[in-house]
Amino acid sequence: MALTLDSLAEYLHSVGIPCQVDGDGSAIVESVATLEDATRGQLSFLSNPKYEPYLETTRAEAVLVRPDVKINRQMSLLRTPDPYAAVTAAIVRLHGYRKHPWWGVSEQAIISPTARIGANANIAPGVYIDDGAEIGDNATLYPGVYIARGTRIGNNVTLFPNVVIYENCVLGNNVTIHAGTVIGEDGLGYAPVNEKWVKIPQIGNVIIGDDVEMGPNCTIDRATLGSTVIGSGTKFSNLVAIGHGTKVGEDCLFVAQVGLAGSVTVGRHVTIAGQAGVVGHITIGDNAVIGAKAGVSNSIEAGATVLGQPAVAISECKRQIAVMQQLPKLKNEIKRMRRELDRLLQLAGEKPRSVEKHTEPPVAT
Amino acid sequence: MALTLDSLAEYLHSVGIPCQVDGDGSAIVESVATLEDATRGQLSFLSNPKYEPYLETTRAEAVLVRPDVKINRQMSLLRTPDPYAAVTAAIVRLHGYRKHPWWGVSEQAIISPTARIGANANIAPGVYIDDGAEIGDNATLYPGVYIARGTRIGNNVTLFPNVVIYENCVLGNNVTIHAGTVIGEDGLGYAPVNEKWVKIPQIGNVIIGDDVEMGPNCTIDRATLGSTVIGSGTKFSNLVAIGHGTKVGEDCLFVAQVGLAGSVTVGRHVTIAGQAGVVGHITIGDNAVIGAKAGVSNSIEAGATVLGQPAVAISECKRQIAVMQQLPKLKNEIKRMRRELDRLLQLAGEKPRSVEKHTEPPVAT
Amino acid sequence: MALTLDSLAEYLHSVGIPCQVDGDGSAIVESVATLEDATRGQLSFLSNPKYEPYLETTRAEAVLVRPDVKINRQMSLLRTPDPYAAVTAAIVRLHGYRKHPWWGVSEQAIISPTARIGANANIAPGVYIDDGAEIGDNATLYPGVYIARGTRIGNNVTLFPNVVIYENCVLGNNVTIHAGTVIGEDGLGYAPVNEKWVKIPQIGNVIIGDDVEMGPNCTIDRATLGSTVIGSGTKFSNLVAIGHGTKVGEDCLFVAQVGLAGSVTVGRHVTIAGQAGVVGHITIGDNAVIGAKAGVSNSIEAGATVLGQPAVAISECKRQIAVMQQLPKLKNEIKRMRRELDRLLQLAGEKPRSVEKHTEPPVAT
Repeated sequence: MALTLDSLAEYLHSVGIPCQVDGDGSAIVESVATLEDATRGQLSFLSNPKYEPYLETTRAEAVLVRPDVKINRQMSLLRTPDPYAAVTAAIVRLHGYRKHPWWGVSEQAIISPTARIGANANIAPGVYIDDGAEIGDNATLYPGVYIARGTRIGNNVTLFPNVVIYENCVLGNNVTIHAGTVIGEDGLGYAPVNEKWVKIPQIGNVIIGDDVEMGPNCTIDRATLGSTVIGSGTKFSNLVAIGHGTKVGEDCLFVAQVGLAGSVTVGRHVTIAGQAGVVGHITIGDNAVIGAKAGVSNSIEAGATVLGQPAVAISECKRQIAVMQQLPKLKNEIKRMRRELDRLLQLAGEKPRSVEKHTEPPVAT
Repeated sequence: MALTLDSLAEYLHSVGIPCQVDGDGSAIVESVATLEDATRGQLSFLSNPKYEPYLETTRAEAVLVRPDVKINRQMSLLRTPDPYAAVTAAIVRLHGYRKHPWWGVSEQAIISPTARIGANANIAPGVYIDDGAEIGDNATLYPGVYIARGTRIGNNVTLFPNVVIYENCVLGNNVTIHAGTVIGEDGLGYAPVNEKWVKIPQIGNVIIGDDVEMGPNCTIDRATLGSTVIGSGTKFSNLVAIGHGTKVGEDCLFVAQVGLAGSVTVGRHVTIAGQAGVVGHITIGDNAVIGAKAGVSNSIEAGATVLGQPAVAISECKRQIAVMQQLPKLKNEIKRMRRELDRLLQLAGEKPRSVEKHTEPPVAT
Repeated sequence: MALTLDSLAEYLHSVGIPCQVDGDGSAIVESVATLEDATRGQLSFLSNPKYEPYLETTRAEAVLVRPDVKINRQMSLLRTPDPYAAVTAAIVRLHGYRKHPWWGVSEQAIISPTARIGANANIAPGVYIDDGAEIGDNATLYPGVYIARGTRIGNNVTLFPNVVIYENCVLGNNVTIHAGTVIGEDGLGYAPVNEKWVKIPQIGNVIIGDDVEMGPNCTIDRATLGSTVIGSGTKFSNLVAIGHGTKVGEDCLFVAQVGLAGSVTVGRHVTIAGQAGVVGHITIGDNAVIGAKAGVSNSIEAGATVLGQPAVAISECKRQIAVMQQLPKLKNEIKRMRRELDRLLQLAGEKPRSVEKHTEPPVAT
């Protein structure tokens, strides 16, 4: 759609985002692009200061910026305290969310007569829904989706191609699962008997709350007993692995390739950055932040930010890294002092206590 | 099913697990649950001492515990030296393993006339089996499974939805592969020619032994020449990546997101914890244990336990971590000593040897 | 096929690989195998010196070796400066590349009437191609492939089973994508509003150049705005994750489980080893090499080789590792010096400045 800057500003106000037009309010924007790519008729935004230089060169029709941003050229601006929230609302307004293909309930989908399908279902060819499964209203299931027996899915759920959900799992409303993600498979549950691994039937399930979104090719183990739980509002990126019996709170954000072992308890609004891992049977407090590649081996208090392997408070981790980079220098300093000390001990008529010989060459710094 | 504690104890004895009823042997259990979740009619267990407090509050009908566990309340117990093995047997007895849907050989599966399918096959709609493939007896293939030409699969094999097996691979008996796992794809085999990558045909295959189980979305490269091998009894968790030509021994356990490069040789009963990685062309000895996130860049002896990046003996790694956390303190101590030493050198009429200036502020500890 | 060593040598010359027969030029080779596995009629090669001992025991008909390699037994050799390039050419010549099953355009594929399919298409049953999609000439699409609306694919493209490509993406010519890989899904794009995550429509796409190959179960996010780009000639291994808006240059090589966050700019011919990660909004220069498990948090200059977490120049990283392994020893040395220094200070009639007590036991070395 197309909007004047005045009407876009009005819309942003209406969704609670204060916004002042600075320039020609009758200018029309039809779509959104980056400062680098934007051209006539396109709205852009500046949120990360790193990209401020592009303000001088962008061909955008208008740009969302903070109130205090200075610009040395003639251009139309929309000034708002939170350009990122504003551009989000603008994208929703001008572009909207993905429109799915429409299949109705395809005759080439295989749906058990004992499955219950809600109103306005959109089920593609090649979908398989097993006995006793329940799918809520307004569901969109893409080709290759497999729903095992007894699994119950809420309203307004979207499952992209080849999503697989094992038996007796539960998904809430407004859940979106991207292609290839697997939910409810058996976890790594074996009893060691004479150096063999005896499989423990995994009789639990997975329960996913409302408004959850998961990226592609994630894997969420069912619990051995009870439930693996993903809280409402939580978002996962790609290739995330969740172990059996782990419980993740509400409104968490997990970046790509994060892995949680089994029986972990994660609070609400926890952020875990890319490739971080958490060992089993520990607790992560509310609002904790776990840095990229962190290896978390102990429980973390609410609000803490940790980094490193093993993960420690980020300030501590940064101190360690800073000193570590000086290690070679420190090592040479110690050797120098050792030599001087020996000399002083001799002058004092004392026998040097030095027990170890410094035969290695000094480390270059 | 439902069992009295007496008859359950009898069954456990019959499978080699000693067990004493301590309480009402006529109490009946029908299912198994955690101490936290269990209610009337449910059996629970205490293996990890961490959960001992729940013994005071559990509503379980009966609990499997070690002989020496003390309890201050009236409840029915089954005392056994290995509660974990016992609960495994109890789950198998009371719940059994997953029962698969029954499809027979679906007319909506696509099976080459030159493929050989064993007795009692259970092949879902949407399965594709190419020319010359062989599937043993009692196979269960879920929708979306693809078996390429010439691949041979043993008896009692279960392939969950969307498992893909490339051409000329071999799977043994009693193999279970979870959804989305890919076996036999080309590895990263290219010859560098003038800064381009020239693809090397990957003409080898993958051979998987008996009783192997793999989690979802794993990827097992075929060998360039010869075979990538996964030994009998080995179990993988989720998102495990195995490089071309790597040979994994029997009864190994790999946790989620483990990655092995190509041409690695792994012995028997090796445990690799989550997100660990192993470089190519090295050997991991029998019964070795590789810790979570370890980066293994050198061969490891049989029985060794390693940790860290690069991975070293766990005792060594822990020593390093311990000292590293004291680094900022050590650094300040060195500076203090430096100053004192300079003073003593002056007192001794010697010119301080100190060559570097300590201009940086001391590190807070 | 079968070739004499003379005719194979001739062929290698014809593709620009100098090669001398050393032994019986009339010997015939029909296939290629490793030194360990090769038998009569098979050609092998020695590239990695590590495998040189196998030269003494191999039963290969002939072996490709460097000109200077000495052998103490009677056998046929093909001497060439680059045995790896030579064996690659020999494998191509003797074995060729994978031959795909032939489906033509299957009537069991679902293809929108508004999709455009090129000449000589090979489209399997169970493929789904949505409205307005374009598939070039000589395409091979395996079962379970899903191509969303408006996606355009070049000539000579192979998509293995269950590959999913979201809407409006672009793939070049000669692209190969292995099973289960997902291209064009939404990235982790949310605006934080009152501790909730508000989804930002991801209106960009993914553009993949010519001659790109990706391993199985990779995930390539579409851009929020604009395009995520994978340059021509670039090769990915398994389980690689690319964040939204990231641009990867030409002829790069990414090993398994590599993860790049969003808005990263990667130059040409960059190598990233297994399980390495790169944070968002930074730049990796041409020909850079990122070591296994590296955590790259700052931009990297062209030609640099980095390692570690955080990643630093490899020489620096190795120095740090070397000293770190001596840390326990250094710590004890500092304590010893501390004691000696205190003694000297006393002898000099000075009050020891030592403020901290060394109460911990010394660390064993």
